Amino acid sequence: MKLNSPVQLAIVGATGAVGQELLTVLEKRQFPLAGLRCFASPRSEGKTLTFFGESIPVEVINEKSFQHIDIAIFSAGRKIAYEYAPLAVRSGAVVIDNSSAFRMQEDVPLVIPEINPHALKNHQGVIASPNCSTTIMLMALAPLHRCFGIKRVVAATYQAASGAGAAAMEELKAETRALLDQAPFNRQIMPFPYAFNLFTHNSPLSENGYVDEELKMLHETRKILGDDSIWVNATCVRVPVLRAHSEALNVTFHRPATKDQVIELLKYAPGLVLLENRSLNRFPMPSDASGQDSVFCGRIREDLSFPNTFDLWVVGDQLLKGAALNAIQIAEQLIHQDVLCKLP
Amino acid sequence: MKLNSPVQLAIVGATGAVGQELLTVLEKRQFPLAGLRCFASPRSEGKTLTFFGESIPVEVINEKSFQHIDIAIFSAGRKIAYEYAPLAVRSGAVVIDNSSAFRMQEDVPLVIPEINPHALKNHQGVIASPNCSTTIMLMALAPLHRCFGIKRVVAATYQAASGAGAAAMEELKAETRALLDQAPFNRQIMPFPYAFNLFTHNSPLSENGYVDEELKMLHETRKILGDDSIWVNATCVRVPVLRAHSEALNVTFHRPATKDQVIELLKYAPGLVLLENRSLNRFPMPSDASGQDSVFCGRIREDLSFPNTFDLWVVGDQLLKGAALNAIQIAEQLIHQDVLCKLP
Repeated sequence: MKLNSPVQLAIVGATGAVGQELLTVLEKRQFPLAGLRCFASPRSEGKTLTFFGESIPVEVINEKSFQHIDIAIFSAGRKIAYEYAPLAVRSGAVVIDNSSAFRMQEDVPLVIPEINPHALKNHQGVIASPNCSTTIMLMALAPLHRCFGIKRVVAATYQAASGAGAAAMEELKAETRALLDQAPFNRQIMPFPYAFNLFTHNSPLSENGYVDEELKMLHETRKILGDDSIWVNATCVRVPVLRAHSEALNVTFHRPATKDQVIELLKYAPGLVLLENRSLNRFPMPSDASGQDSVFCGRIREDLSFPNTFDLWVVGDQLLKGAALNAIQIAEQLIHQDVLCKLP
Repeated sequence: MKLNSPVQLAIVGATGAVGQELLTVLEKRQFPLAGLRCFASPRSEGKTLTFFGESIPVEVINEKSFQHIDIAIFSAGRKIAYEYAPLAVRSGAVVIDNSSAFRMQEDVPLVIPEINPHALKNHQGVIASPNCSTTIMLMALAPLHRCFGIKRVVAATYQAASGAGAAAMEELKAETRALLDQAPFNRQIMPFPYAFNLFTHNSPLSENGYVDEELKMLHETRKILGDDSIWVNATCVRVPVLRAHSEALNVTFHRPATKDQVIELLKYAPGLVLLENRSLNRFPMPSDASGQDSVFCGRIREDLSFPNTFDLWVVGDQLLKGAALNAIQIAEQLIHQDVLCKLP
């Protein structure tokens, strides 16, 4: 990264679960900032956020908010992205959006920097960061795809509360405490009981019976790996875990592979940690991945039931590599590749 | 069931999580009892259990324990089964064992009464009740197998604490409370953090990387469905849920099937409840199945990625259909089929 190119950064949705992590990641990675502005909804107006020990006011977006901003990271959902990303781009900023608003648009690169940084080259002002489940899965699958060609993935997810926001994490804790105390609880965020329970991912259901989250894993994978022949058949489930997603992946390759080859590739995959201690039955858990930048991978088995097929288990922090970290890495790549558009 | 054939019943492991459920199931189903004796380990000696309002003493097994017993239901693990089932059989009792001790022995029927009651006919004194994950899966798959022939299943499980016993359920609650209170916690039962966490099923790992639980799902399925060509590739995971297992199943058939045919078969499958409300995104959850006899099934989708392949989601009470209920149903079938061996 060019340390002589400090940028003016804006965060939209700065008070949310991902917003908070964005600040932490910026601090930790010593991102080359010239300035930082934090935006959130009117109900957060007047609040301040702490960054490197200093107070930063939370602002509400107006017509002039993105003037002189180089990069605006949006973590405020589809609606806000649709509404304000065009304004940010018109103001000369490059938008990195964490929502699904623009991911499948042809002129919007969908980027995981370890996997397809080259896709940033031709951006038109908006770059999308993938769905958390897709990112965590592909951190393990991309290196295997390059060598063996992925034909089909059958995925089952174990998704944390954080994917539904900071309030959902708090609600899971509060509901669990109420259940332990046999006290009544008035659920506000989640549609179904969550304490010691689990349910189908609460995203809209399509005609074909797949929920949106499952279809994202299919379509985003094809776009990121640049291969529309890949199939991902996912079942997405919300489990009572706070902030790391786990996924059981059954992967069929076009070309023959050995378990040793798979392990070797995963061992050296960037951003991935192989965690397999068979004698202790010790494989990645959400508690390993929470707060960690790396995605963890293990349980690598040759699937005896189908040719060229392997089982993998991946776990990643939903707020970090699943969202905030990936967005900041995209920003770093924009600087590194020198593809920030600046107003003349 | 012949109500004029009341039986002398013994429960071995009566103070455990499954043992307790056995008593409840016997009461609820008005099982035709002539007498009931409860056995447990020496540390439970002197305790009493309540059955239909009466106190039943907890006894320790001795040489004469199974005299005059018609059926002995064992829910005390492999070791106790190996040690005392032969004694029970020698004493003239038929043993129904919930452990994995005898399941794969050729002369031991492995029975889910809705699926293969005929297997009881030629028992030699010992009948095995399958692993809970296998039973819950097959309640949905058996009727489909009969029509379309199952070639391969890719399964991911979401298994409850109850599978590790009553103490594990209590530990999950205690560890969760400690975490919420930020208090220290000294784990005794589970090998890994369990509060708001999940981990690979803690059964021994085989050379090929599969844990025992995963291999049980393969081998027991073949035996129960009587078809050694079926493949089950499972990933078994312990999730912080109290007493119901969930499973994401991806099933490939030999013969073509339509979604409507699959739904029709599942709608009328014995012991199965179809729960699909797509407009509410409402599918089976552990909270639906807990305390219920039926296994719940939903999320029936045609898998667009592979021919003759469907996704299903099943949830069942691990202590009931996964263990206690199935064992009592086996006992009922023994009476119904009049295949209890009695000493002359």
